[in-house]
Amino acid sequence: MNRKMICRSLGNILIFEGIIMLLPFLVSLIYGEHTATYFVITSIVALSIGYILSNLKIENKHIYAKEGFIIVALSWIIVSLIGALPFYISGEIPNYVDAFFETVSGFTTTGSTILNDIEGLSKGMLFWRCFTHWIGGMGVLVFVLAFLPQSEGQNMFLMKAEVPGPVVGKLVSKVQMTARILYAIYAALTVLEIVFLLFGNMPLYDSIVHAFSTAGTGGYSIKNSSIAYYNSYYIDMVITVFMLLFGVNFNLYYLLILKDVKQVFKSEELRWYIAIIIVFTTIITINTLGVYGSVAESFRYSIFQIASIITTTGFGTTDFGMWPMLSQILLLLLMVVGACAGSTGGGMKISRIMILIKSAKSSVKKMVSPRSVSTINVEGKPVDKQVLDFAYSYFVVYAIVFFGSVVLLSFENLDIVTTLTAPLTCLGNVGPGFGDLIGPVGNFATLSNFSKVVLSFDMLAGRLELFPMILLCYSIKDSISTVCKRTLKR
Amino acid sequence: MNRKMICRSLGNILIFEGIIMLLPFLVSLIYGEHTATYFVITSIVALSIGYILSNLKIENKHIYAKEGFIIVALSWIIVSLIGALPFYISGEIPNYVDAFFETVSGFTTTGSTILNDIEGLSKGMLFWRCFTHWIGGMGVLVFVLAFLPQSEGQNMFLMKAEVPGPVVGKLVSKVQMTARILYAIYAALTVLEIVFLLFGNMPLYDSIVHAFSTAGTGGYSIKNSSIAYYNSYYIDMVITVFMLLFGVNFNLYYLLILKDVKQVFKSEELRWYIAIIIVFTTIITINTLGVYGSVAESFRYSIFQIASIITTTGFGTTDFGMWPMLSQILLLLLMVVGACAGSTGGGMKISRIMILIKSAKSSVKKMVSPRSVSTINVEGKPVDKQVLDFAYSYFVVYAIVFFGSVVLLSFENLDIVTTLTAPLTCLGNVGPGFGDLIGPVGNFATLSNFSKVVLSFDMLAGRLELFPMILLCYSIKDSISTVCKRTLKR
Repeated sequence: MNRKMICRSLGNILIFEGIIMLLPFLVSLIYGEHTATYFVITSIVALSIGYILSNLKIENKHIYAKEGFIIVALSWIIVSLIGALPFYISGEIPNYVDAFFETVSGFTTTGSTILNDIEGLSKGMLFWRCFTHWIGGMGVLVFVLAFLPQSEGQNMFLMKAEVPGPVVGKLVSKVQMTARILYAIYAALTVLEIVFLLFGNMPLYDSIVHAFSTAGTGGYSIKNSSIAYYNSYYIDMVITVFMLLFGVNFNLYYLLILKDVKQVFKSEELRWYIAIIIVFTTIITINTLGVYGSVAESFRYSIFQIASIITTTGFGTTDFGMWPMLSQILLLLLMVVGACAGSTGGGMKISRIMILIKSAKSSVKKMVSPRSVSTINVEGKPVDKQVLDFAYSYFVVYAIVFFGSVVLLSFENLDIVTTLTAPLTCLGNVGPGFGDLIGPVGNFATLSNFSKVVLSFDMLAGRLELFPMILLCYSIKDSISTVCKRTLKR
Repeated sequence: MNRKMICRSLGNILIFEGIIMLLPFLVSLIYGEHTATYFVITSIVALSIGYILSNLKIENKHIYAKEGFIIVALSWIIVSLIGALPFYISGEIPNYVDAFFETVSGFTTTGSTILNDIEGLSKGMLFWRCFTHWIGGMGVLVFVLAFLPQSEGQNMFLMKAEVPGPVVGKLVSKVQMTARILYAIYAALTVLEIVFLLFGNMPLYDSIVHAFSTAGTGGYSIKNSSIAYYNSYYIDMVITVFMLLFGVNFNLYYLLILKDVKQVFKSEELRWYIAIIIVFTTIITINTLGVYGSVAESFRYSIFQIASIITTTGFGTTDFGMWPMLSQILLLLLMVVGACAGSTGGGMKISRIMILIKSAKSSVKKMVSPRSVSTINVEGKPVDKQVLDFAYSYFVVYAIVFFGSVVLLSFENLDIVTTLTAPLTCLGNVGPGFGDLIGPVGNFATLSNFSKVVLSFDMLAGRLELFPMILLCYSIKDSISTVCKRTLKR
């Protein structure tokens, strides 16, 4: 393994983090908060370590897929470890594990919080918290790729490992250009949301941070009662629409820019996505009529919550724990399914579910007529055998990680609903779980440090689509066994 | 589709059911119960319909895999529909849907009950209830195959569709001989258990019916408090050992008869099975020490419950709802995993889980070095590509059926734990679920008729390993759409 190249990549990431840390620093300055100092300190730490690592002398610059995965996994862990420092050294989150959990939840765009009183945090910290969503949404490394020159081969490895979905396509031939286009679309949509929110009389600061959280499909709010605080039909609708927009594959926006509208609506995944939203909204609107009294109100809360859960954002305007069981179960289902591949949303991704369902169907067919040759078509093209295999193994690894986390979490001896849905919401990067403790009106504060570490792992595994974290575990296991063997030889 | 051959096969099955109905009839006579009449009536109904169907004139005797699956699915449904009659017409279970649920639960060896007062049933009915476990355990059709002459090709289709596990091997070259050997081993083990239970001072009648329930890994008891009623360390241990024995692939017993002990312990699945039992028993014994006070008691209840859940029997000696969450979660895991392929146990089967885990591992490897050729070995042999594909699609279909049932069940508006674990326990043919309602001390009585039908489907789908029931649904859908088209043309 090319350890030096891994270190160098991590160095670049840290420099990048040191630089973006200046944004919350500025916010703190504007509001005259003393927390500004903590951002400077963290920035200096990040820049120094980053400078040392990125200036390592390297003879062999070649990396393979394995190094790519390891770089991605370690980058996200290190960025979170450093990103947690401002919360911790300012004392606003006095337990470092809590601060780490909160930062991982931010970068992975999960949005689960350990804070009981969100409004107690300073403006700078709240800004940083939501900004991690924005950075994590499109990908920490994609951002670095967009602006740092690296060789083409390496970039594709990193991009493949970080961008969600079963197949990663390049928009244009150069990876760097692709990354820049993606970030440009992302930024444009974010600005658009800010403007729309301002029209709804949301203060500028609030509009910016909520746009960050929506864009990354994260779900952090600066209010204890989340979006319910604003109690505005208009704001609910704006955020609903933007959550749904950020759950769409960004490649489609690029096609829109190229004015290839036909191609956009040919997208099978998009059509499934729209169909799911329409069907689920209809059912849940009717099902929750008894709770809200009128169709208008019922529709407002239903579509907001559906958008929030399918895109795995996790904003709340109501306590869905009070809904009839049918609506709750449908939300649980959306939690697992997630948004479109290539969007900022989490979950298993609709295209992956499409592949799995279609292949199961073809297997049933094959059982009836064993000699039938059945190719599976997605987006009008036959699915590559390897893509299918990876989709299957993703599903199996997902189940293994899920059950493993549930077992580790059960040491806490909490109720069974919390034990089962906490890993689910974290793996899907959703945010709220079910049950009184971690439901839409609860938070993760009371969990033990051990459980918080397990759930942080789940959030990272979910965001990076399992394999980078799994490969990291394997390498760590290998390294430990090598060290043990050496020690025994002596 | 060869409808006539399907009807004829169903006819044979009904004749068979009419004959075995004489056994509970005899029991009723011995105990001088008037319920004897109801068994005679049902027997006459089954024999008459069976006689008519099995004497249909058929030109083309050839069937394909599809017909095989449909025959299996319909057989199990019809056998349950008729098997429910004695409960219903005797008035001992006054609601026919309840009687159907109870019979499906019996034949599929699930053991979930809708009875609040089991001891209120007559001896004849209780005997019939447990006897359905014994018949369903090894397979209704396997029994018929063992004694009715049919062409070799057809038999293999039926056997493949009914015997659990990813690969079905024939012990000897003839399917009929294989079926006979299996039933002989099955009967011998059952008799052995009866003898052991008699030694523990269990009355003869109780010993016989509990041996039936153990053999089929069903879980019906004749006591409201299940095996806890006898409150005997010896009886608990005998039943534990026999549950575990019936969870082993029966092919291994055949190897034992051939004195090929080496080959038996070479079985990878058996070694996993033993390892899982040892590890889980150790953990749960320690974890429940606080509940039971001494290691001896803790071990007694732990291993009994583990054996009961991994083999999907569902007998109870304690309320595991009172256990620490870790132990509960481990039981939940065993519920999904299930016993060995080719045993009478349910669940996904250990060998299928082995295949999935190994293939996921090999996929991870492939991700690192894309050019590596990795074959997956199970039982020392490379796994056939098709077997792997079916294992994967089984997993996907399992998830779809599970979520579909959860959604249908959520119309009841019960609590989330019941809504999620009822389909799980029914699909796995386990018996008890989690939560107050359907947990080890609860039952399914309060559910609506609709939910009972959904769960009956799940039990059948689980017992027949999904595909026969899925194919039946497809054919029904096809038939309906054909009829609709014809009607529209007119």
